[in-house]
Amino acid sequence: MQDVFQYVETHRARFVEELCTLLRQPSISAQDVGVTECAARVLSLMSEAGAEARLIPTPGYPVVYGQVSAPGAGRTVLIYGHYDVQPPEPLELWESPPFEPSLRNGRIYARGAGDNKGQMFAHLKALEAILRTRGRLPVSLKLCFEGEEEISSPNLPAFVQKHRKLLAADVVYASDGPMHPSGPTVFFGCRGLLYLELTVAGAKRDLHSGNYGGVAPAPAGRLAQALASCWTSRGRVAVEGFYDRVKKPSPADRRVLGAIPLDGRTIRQDLGVSPVAGPGARAYYERLLMQPNLNIAGLTAGYQGPGSKTIIPHVARAKVDVRLVMDQDPDDIEEKIRAHLKRRGFGDIEVKRLGAVPPSRTPVDHPLGQAVVRAVTQAWGRRPVLFPNLGGTIPDYLFTRVLGLPSIWVPYAPHDEANHAPNESITLEGFMNGIRSTAAALFEIAAA
Amino acid sequence: MQDVFQYVETHRARFVEELCTLLRQPSISAQDVGVTECAARVLSLMSEAGAEARLIPTPGYPVVYGQVSAPGAGRTVLIYGHYDVQPPEPLELWESPPFEPSLRNGRIYARGAGDNKGQMFAHLKALEAILRTRGRLPVSLKLCFEGEEEISSPNLPAFVQKHRKLLAADVVYASDGPMHPSGPTVFFGCRGLLYLELTVAGAKRDLHSGNYGGVAPAPAGRLAQALASCWTSRGRVAVEGFYDRVKKPSPADRRVLGAIPLDGRTIRQDLGVSPVAGPGARAYYERLLMQPNLNIAGLTAGYQGPGSKTIIPHVARAKVDVRLVMDQDPDDIEEKIRAHLKRRGFGDIEVKRLGAVPPSRTPVDHPLGQAVVRAVTQAWGRRPVLFPNLGGTIPDYLFTRVLGLPSIWVPYAPHDEANHAPNESITLEGFMNGIRSTAAALFEIAAA
Repeated sequence: MQDVFQYVETHRARFVEELCTLLRQPSISAQDVGVTECAARVLSLMSEAGAEARLIPTPGYPVVYGQVSAPGAGRTVLIYGHYDVQPPEPLELWESPPFEPSLRNGRIYARGAGDNKGQMFAHLKALEAILRTRGRLPVSLKLCFEGEEEISSPNLPAFVQKHRKLLAADVVYASDGPMHPSGPTVFFGCRGLLYLELTVAGAKRDLHSGNYGGVAPAPAGRLAQALASCWTSRGRVAVEGFYDRVKKPSPADRRVLGAIPLDGRTIRQDLGVSPVAGPGARAYYERLLMQPNLNIAGLTAGYQGPGSKTIIPHVARAKVDVRLVMDQDPDDIEEKIRAHLKRRGFGDIEVKRLGAVPPSRTPVDHPLGQAVVRAVTQAWGRRPVLFPNLGGTIPDYLFTRVLGLPSIWVPYAPHDEANHAPNESITLEGFMNGIRSTAAALFEIAAA
Repeated sequence: MQDVFQYVETHRARFVEELCTLLRQPSISAQDVGVTECAARVLSLMSEAGAEARLIPTPGYPVVYGQVSAPGAGRTVLIYGHYDVQPPEPLELWESPPFEPSLRNGRIYARGAGDNKGQMFAHLKALEAILRTRGRLPVSLKLCFEGEEEISSPNLPAFVQKHRKLLAADVVYASDGPMHPSGPTVFFGCRGLLYLELTVAGAKRDLHSGNYGGVAPAPAGRLAQALASCWTSRGRVAVEGFYDRVKKPSPADRRVLGAIPLDGRTIRQDLGVSPVAGPGARAYYERLLMQPNLNIAGLTAGYQGPGSKTIIPHVARAKVDVRLVMDQDPDDIEEKIRAHLKRRGFGDIEVKRLGAVPPSRTPVDHPLGQAVVRAVTQAWGRRPVLFPNLGGTIPDYLFTRVLGLPSIWVPYAPHDEANHAPNESITLEGFMNGIRSTAAALFEIAAA
């Protein structure tokens, strides 16, 4: 592997510059900003790296798909990534503009640096490095980069169903999410997601609270009451039946959870406050990874500017995201939330689904998973931390359930990448070791 | 009065044009936009109308003060008004720009048309009409127009205390708020107001809900729970002791309340939905005028744009306005809300006061009140509806409690003026009859 690793080191400056060029292209799927232009750019980059690349249309944004065949190779690896990014708001909190990459503190700062352009691009540079040094890959490779991950991949399920043959492989390898604070990390799945928007409507316009306070409907108050009804006073989700299908962690799960180092100080520094789960690694990670969570991602009603304005807002909205664990099902949970609201007298509240992804897991002791662990160990010079699954959500169920493949995730972004927030970044170390990890993984999977 | 009324009719077109010029000058006290410029313009208008006018500074925006002495007149009338306006947001819902007055449907549309520039300006035109036709007023007149009413008049209390002699009078006459849907209206007081901002803080930045959902503080959920705890499931305020000082309506109050016509159809049309109080006038008006109300005027947290963004907002805020009735006290109610939050486990929530005005009332059978009722009857050609007090808030306590005067309010804006909302307006009929009402009131008060 030293020849391949040496190539990566030699071309470091160019790789960083190429990544910055990619990061300058916005691709905000939630706001329809620059996504199509970004797909074209990724297509070029994939082709330049040595893959037979093409855009495959979907009803939304296209999938950038590529293949590199290695005649005689025993295995096929399918690599997944995404080229769309989260909205950059609130803009005023960015230290440098989100789409003008800035190098400082050994990091590249930009929207998408960590989630997911920096990680996705590392795969392409690994491909380039192997082909330029060895002339061929040790496995056949398929690349599938989508443009709708940040809006919950609405068209990927149909795409995977439709292209099962095209995507046929022995294993899925992918990089997304942040590493653990202690360093290199391997995940074997993810929590699921159900994203809902709740809307409470009142009068046809905002009303003067003096002229109508007490006699007109008050949507903001009703929204607060409806949302509050979703938790017990101790912070558990109060939606009837919500925990019915939640599996208790197995002894093996508990062993893996207990082996994850918990650096409470780094977490406290990152948050600026203490976490609310713990104490101890097992309690913290069991809550984060093996327990579902109901979160308010946004609230909006009435006057939000400086000073005071005495109105009864005529509409109030909440964005609600629910993280799901095995074996919760998004359809079932949505039904239970609707039933809960109805039962508590909030049946008039409009509930709109904005996205849904089921939870998914691969056994942590899968042989190809162990091959990947060896590859990451080579790239970083130390063993990675293993996670039974990610706290976040990735469309892993398409690989495990629809394609029926083991699916191994190796994040390259740092624990404090600030994805989905201002000042997102990836470390240069993570980016470079990421390239090395992908390259080594292809060899280890071939040999396993 | 016919000569004075005739003068008003003859100069109608000019009066409307002068009002439109005044409305073009923004004066948004909550946002510090154009208020000082507006004060200078009001000073000129007052002077041109025939008063000895000057700006009296305060720590905030100046009071525009004027006097017209009538030697030998037995009574002095103090007229109050305000030249500041509410913020115009949301701008996209205005059919014509808020500071470009538009005449249509027999109305003038602009921010401040009803609240309060159109009504305040009517007093100046009444002054002009009497002086140009009679050469002198039947009473001595004092004019006091402030620029901070829409931010709860923070400097008016000290101003009135300091200038008690300057403001000495027999009665206060003022026009603010909307008329009742049935037509001309006389009020004898108002509900009070306590305006609070609640802030719940969490981490130092927004967090990815996948990476931290369940283990990081969730300010938006806590805010919803804290707000929801302020009401019972039946919509009563659940703050301990909140209703302790609320007076039950007297038999006289009930008579007045029962005599107010309730046009349910107009109210439903105005709201677009049915009111939540009633049925019947007495129940509706007792709830609106004689009962306090706790309202959420604004909610803000996290992502509020299109589509979905999976974050844990690091801060959540609510604007809360509380309408108070006799004998509730803002300081006492604020203390009770703070104690309530603490008792329910929300002691960490920051509570900031943005404004406070006590409730205030004058007896409905006061002789000078009856004189005003006769004047309004002359101006409109029919008897006004009497209200024990307004549902909204005006700094009436300064006149009734600090100056110890009876205080009579005659609104000139229509019931659907949309003050504090987009497409605010005053009818030309209300504006013109308002000028006539002020003029006739000065004569009736002189004769009473």
